[in-house]
Amino acid sequence: MARIIETRPLDRESFRPFGDVIEAEGADPLPINGGMCERYHDLARMEATGSGGRLNISIARSRPYALPLRLTIVERHPFGSQAFVPLSPRPFLVVVCPDEDGRPGTPQAFLTAPGQGVNYLRNTWHGVLTPLGEAQDFLIVDRVGEGSNLEEHHFGEPWEIRAG
Amino acid sequence: MARIIETRPLDRESFRPFGDVIEAEGADPLPINGGMCERYHDLARMEATGSGGRLNISIARSRPYALPLRLTIVERHPFGSQAFVPLSPRPFLVVVCPDEDGRPGTPQAFLTAPGQGVNYLRNTWHGVLTPLGEAQDFLIVDRVGEGSNLEEHHFGEPWEIRAG
Repeated sequence: MARIIETRPLDRESFRPFGDVIEAEGADPLPINGGMCERYHDLARMEATGSGGRLNISIARSRPYALPLRLTIVERHPFGSQAFVPLSPRPFLVVVCPDEDGRPGTPQAFLTAPGQGVNYLRNTWHGVLTPLGEAQDFLIVDRVGEGSNLEEHHFGEPWEIRAG
Repeated sequence: MARIIETRPLDRESFRPFGDVIEAEGADPLPINGGMCERYHDLARMEATGSGGRLNISIARSRPYALPLRLTIVERHPFGSQAFVPLSPRPFLVVVCPDEDGRPGTPQAFLTAPGQGVNYLRNTWHGVLTPLGEAQDFLIVDRVGEGSNLEEHHFGEPWEIRAG
């Protein structure tokens, strides 16, 4: 019998142990440019550690996935955080797991609202980038540098992620 | 008589002395996630210098501007680069100036194509964020930290930016 996880809407508070929700809503804006613009400041706890570690900007162009989704693998990055912000107002699936003695515990699955991005904290177990329904472009802000910055965990028994 | 600048399309080569065009087109992708995703890597020359300087992610929500536009002011940031990536596929105006002995020289005006963002190099003269036609949200990746990171220059005689 499959192990089943249902998605729930993404919100700042639920996600805080795993990272940051990058969105304007709920943040305090600062007016700039003579009042023409509002700036929602410092939305992500970013880190780039290890030898030669620095933050870089990339674009990811991903083919779409569908729910229910079979989750067989999660990964984490010991040397840096990793932010994903969609460049179109479409949803994606965010899967994270608490760490239990160096292994991922039970996954939690969140569905983003249009306009929400996420930043995974350094060393946080998460699923791969998973746009739903349509291909999507994302801006990534994460760490480049020397050393092995990828740890993967394959679940002995897969999880099934269903729309909640 | 007004001093007139005409816009031209934004491209990597023309913009390189001032910064980076952040876009997938023309970059070499790396396949990731079992071939489901292409990653266009390390697209911006980012810097965060000075005391306590670090990169942060913000969102800017700007009201729109229209062409022709009266350009009265440009600014630069001595301690860090500043990247702007639109969160919708709409154009914005990018104005930069070469430095001439600590003052901005003749402006150059670029019009972005959908999907293009920019990264201004540290200490590069540029205009304020200028979406055209409709309000837009942008992701900003720039420097926070101590010290005065803003230098403004008011033109004695404004420039007029026209659609080229």
